[in-house]
Amino acid sequence: MATLYLIPTSLGDTSFNRILPSYNTEIVTALRYFIVEDLRTARRFLKKTNPSIDIDSLTFFILNQHTSLEELSSFLLPLFDGNDMGVLSEAGCPAIADPGADIVAMAQKNNFKVVPLVGPSSILLSLMGSGFNGQSFAFVGYLPIQPTDRSKALKKLESRAYAEDQSQIFIETPYRNMKMLEEILMSCQLNTRLCIAADITLETEFIKTKTIKEWKTQLPDLNKRPCIFLIYKSL
Amino acid sequence: MATLYLIPTSLGDTSFNRILPSYNTEIVTALRYFIVEDLRTARRFLKKTNPSIDIDSLTFFILNQHTSLEELSSFLLPLFDGNDMGVLSEAGCPAIADPGADIVAMAQKNNFKVVPLVGPSSILLSLMGSGFNGQSFAFVGYLPIQPTDRSKALKKLESRAYAEDQSQIFIETPYRNMKMLEEILMSCQLNTRLCIAADITLETEFIKTKTIKEWKTQLPDLNKRPCIFLIYKSL
Repeated sequence: MATLYLIPTSLGDTSFNRILPSYNTEIVTALRYFIVEDLRTARRFLKKTNPSIDIDSLTFFILNQHTSLEELSSFLLPLFDGNDMGVLSEAGCPAIADPGADIVAMAQKNNFKVVPLVGPSSILLSLMGSGFNGQSFAFVGYLPIQPTDRSKALKKLESRAYAEDQSQIFIETPYRNMKMLEEILMSCQLNTRLCIAADITLETEFIKTKTIKEWKTQLPDLNKRPCIFLIYKSL
Repeated sequence: MATLYLIPTSLGDTSFNRILPSYNTEIVTALRYFIVEDLRTARRFLKKTNPSIDIDSLTFFILNQHTSLEELSSFLLPLFDGNDMGVLSEAGCPAIADPGADIVAMAQKNNFKVVPLVGPSSILLSLMGSGFNGQSFAFVGYLPIQPTDRSKALKKLESRAYAEDQSQIFIETPYRNMKMLEEILMSCQLNTRLCIAADITLETEFIKTKTIKEWKTQLPDLNKRPCIFLIYKSL
């Protein structure tokens, strides 16, 4: 039975032995068929994983927002022919805060074996580093862009953090991070805790938990840095 | 400034190069102070990470449900003295579905640097493999034990999966897995999808998504296997 491997990549410019088990290299080196989010970064990842790889002998299928469900299902043909395949996302873990879930759902529906490999997830690493509740947490992706909707969404997350004792995690497009931070500081209560995690697994990694009140006195520079925000109730 | 490293361990009997980056070994080998959930498994982990390690030269602090907050704060004294420390949980990632969050919160409050290392998380790996929504998901830990409360909790998770388009993830004590599975099959709608993930990262790994209706025709044997359950709306 052919296997679909879910292959994490790095979260930025970092050495692979910092963030990936060596087993992943063994798996990647043996695969000939890949479903990838971006061809250029996928090639770069594969070349860095195995410098002697013959990229031209590999087959790539491109998976992004424009891929139709019909196209998607054709991507699995190599599995039906008995070939193992790998899914590579642009950064981090495939199918987590990234495309890939649809292709995995199709593989599951067709009874193929699905094997996720270990790698860096900014969601999980930031939650570990936050000191927030790791027994109950939710990741909700991007918040609405329209200011009143966004403020409402932030207040809803904050009230769930208190009512359900659940850490609330969300992200923003890097160039809008500072705007997001200002909106969090305006919308949330002074004693609520906010963890800001930027450049996870990189040299400039920053993971810091403070109360809203404390953050108001000193804003970190998050502009254009990949960043994740976590909200949790006061100590 | 001293650093608190959060050090993932394995999820069972598996080779470390399958699940841990080699960088983790470098960090672990350099540390002299550890906060651990169980002394015996911590020693075993350290010995397997670095066979030439001198265990007797290391200092251990035991962190579990019985540790008072006062004791906890004394655990950080080596950090105040300028020594890096490591937190090891019993299995998987510290502070995720495991103790450790309190000690991280204290380290954050005292402005120490907190660095989470990459490793296996059954929550994240099962979500990747499920084919469920990875752009919005919640982990809620254990469900209530009392049958009517549990059924109510399952129905609430199911309705949130539909209403908020959010994957819902939870766990059970291994010897109660089969009972949990029966209760899920009784409480949820026939078209709702359930992913069962057992023995993650082990030789016997099993990650399978089916509808409730499909699961009813064939129950997997989950007894005493570490297991995680995920619920999501129908395709």
